[in-house]
Amino acid sequence: MKIIKSSTPKADGFYMPAEFSRHYGCVMIFPERADSWQYGAVKAREAFCSVASTIAKSERLIMLASFEQYENARRMLPDNIKVVEMSSDDAWARDVSPEFVIDGKGGMRGVNWKFNAWGGLHDGLYFPWDKDDKIACKVCDLLDCDVYDFRDFVLEGGSITCDGEGTVITTEACLLSRGRNPGLTRQEIEQRLCEGLGAKKVIWLPGGILGDETNEHVDNICVFAGSTRVLLSWCEDESNPQHEMCRRCLEVLESSTDALGRKIEVVKLAMPKPVYMTEYELAGLDYFDGEPTRSADEPLSASYVNLYIANGAVVMPAFGGENEEYDRKAKETVKQVFKDREVIQIYARDILIGGGNIHCITHQIPEFTRKD
Amino acid sequence: MKIIKSSTPKADGFYMPAEFSRHYGCVMIFPERADSWQYGAVKAREAFCSVASTIAKSERLIMLASFEQYENARRMLPDNIKVVEMSSDDAWARDVSPEFVIDGKGGMRGVNWKFNAWGGLHDGLYFPWDKDDKIACKVCDLLDCDVYDFRDFVLEGGSITCDGEGTVITTEACLLSRGRNPGLTRQEIEQRLCEGLGAKKVIWLPGGILGDETNEHVDNICVFAGSTRVLLSWCEDESNPQHEMCRRCLEVLESSTDALGRKIEVVKLAMPKPVYMTEYELAGLDYFDGEPTRSADEPLSASYVNLYIANGAVVMPAFGGENEEYDRKAKETVKQVFKDREVIQIYARDILIGGGNIHCITHQIPEFTRKD
Repeated sequence: MKIIKSSTPKADGFYMPAEFSRHYGCVMIFPERADSWQYGAVKAREAFCSVASTIAKSERLIMLASFEQYENARRMLPDNIKVVEMSSDDAWARDVSPEFVIDGKGGMRGVNWKFNAWGGLHDGLYFPWDKDDKIACKVCDLLDCDVYDFRDFVLEGGSITCDGEGTVITTEACLLSRGRNPGLTRQEIEQRLCEGLGAKKVIWLPGGILGDETNEHVDNICVFAGSTRVLLSWCEDESNPQHEMCRRCLEVLESSTDALGRKIEVVKLAMPKPVYMTEYELAGLDYFDGEPTRSADEPLSASYVNLYIANGAVVMPAFGGENEEYDRKAKETVKQVFKDREVIQIYARDILIGGGNIHCITHQIPEFTRKD
Repeated sequence: MKIIKSSTPKADGFYMPAEFSRHYGCVMIFPERADSWQYGAVKAREAFCSVASTIAKSERLIMLASFEQYENARRMLPDNIKVVEMSSDDAWARDVSPEFVIDGKGGMRGVNWKFNAWGGLHDGLYFPWDKDDKIACKVCDLLDCDVYDFRDFVLEGGSITCDGEGTVITTEACLLSRGRNPGLTRQEIEQRLCEGLGAKKVIWLPGGILGDETNEHVDNICVFAGSTRVLLSWCEDESNPQHEMCRRCLEVLESSTDALGRKIEVVKLAMPKPVYMTEYELAGLDYFDGEPTRSADEPLSASYVNLYIANGAVVMPAFGGENEEYDRKAKETVKQVFKDREVIQIYARDILIGGGNIHCITHQIPEFTRKD
């Protein structure tokens, strides 16, 4: 594996394809961290394994696991999933994996952004984050693909969604936050995004799901679901401040064109009712910094948009309980959008408790020609 | 990756090919352990990297490195070598890697023996050894090859040499030692070897290089260098007890036939003069168990037989200093045996100090058809 320091994907004709394009496979990380995952992460592991097994039906699945968890992961996962020992600080493959860029001729490279646990010393979610930050390079090494060194730029995979045709959607709340790249102007950030993703146009949504501790990653509110088409989380309840945020995002999307000058169709995906942690669940979380990571009165950032588009299926969350009707409706909406894929819902409460959902714990690897 | 518990390579038509057959590649482990490698392992790393780079000219090379050493290994090694994070207790890939067996039709599987640090609680060389013992399974997972579970049988790769035609050579000193499989008879051990390696005949040499802390692994005294041909370490000095051991091994080999009933040609490879550690080198080793791992008055187990047969080269040790003339002669002998490969000598004093040599730190992966 070569570390490329003197060029960029854009300069070399590489670009990030859309998640709905064909995949080589998917990377995930086995959950373990005791202040993120309740009661020894047992239920989280079951949910992660459900997601992994479902994805592995239509593409390769690589599960990264710590030395301590390798055998447990191996035992819990089917044989067609590859388990690879790798150190991490938590289990958010979306944000710590490399972004993959392709040349459209079988070539693939990685992009290694700086990861600082969603805000570094300003408002990062844990300290230290060095193990996470080292994952991108190692995943490229595993896949025998060269990697662009973009470690002068803080970015997480969950903060961008691409159409593979030159358009990137992101949020101001996240990318302009003080914990990311405070030394760069909005214009400079756009430029770095376009260089790193081989893109031409950045569409800025104001924010995402309120209270989302990633500073409102775009992948919890809006995702490219096809060429010129996005899914947008939608809150009908006008008394909920989330309604106003969704409306503002809609406004931006409706008044924007993509990199090729085309209108973008917005499909609204109604949000579930607020989901709260129970006292029992809270009591199952360790304290690492002397303070709790969650409380019973803050809603978790539940959203159906936080889904994974696999080769043969769309794997999306269900929240159950009070949300059964919402779950059913959300599935219907997603089915209308992805007519050629099976839509599979996975009970995701035990992923949500950690702070994210199915999209956050997965990262697609585009189809490419392996050198090995 | 599937863990196979209910069958054996022999039953399934798999066998271990000779090291001189075509390889897919080679596995190594980056050295780090401070009671094995003097002065922060700096010189050992340089020697390991020379070996790796040389092998990587004619086959794939996978270097396993700890979380702590991944980046250092990446920096020191050329781009065509893959570095993979993996925990280990030391750096002896020969002994902790899976043995690989093939079916002659592109299929390959691993065999996961029990590893107990060369003797377990009886006379093992370090404690604990759990990280090492878990490597075999993980390497199979990396290569997407299924693995036979042979963890009821203690064995290291360095204690066997195979011709790929049904013959295994090993030593009584090692395989019958109390620290390996004390509950099994010699006959039962033969049977397990033949099942695990898909072999038909075991030839027992009495021992290996005296003082070799592996209980005299065969790979330091005798190695298959071709069909019906072995290299045998040879000590001319009749006053040295090693002479008698070499003579006894020669006697066994000359009076044996291989699995196909053929005579075995023995090529004597003269040993170097005894190599001792200097006081300076000894002072560079940490103490882990309250006692030194080496002393200045015990010779290191230096042998030219401890070489690696790569696709395009034979990579063999040189010891320099007083041994320059011996180095030169050994190279000539090896050249006569491997006429179709380049013979490359690498200054190996800094590997020998750790207790083994080039064969001990490498493990070939036979050519196979990757599933991935």
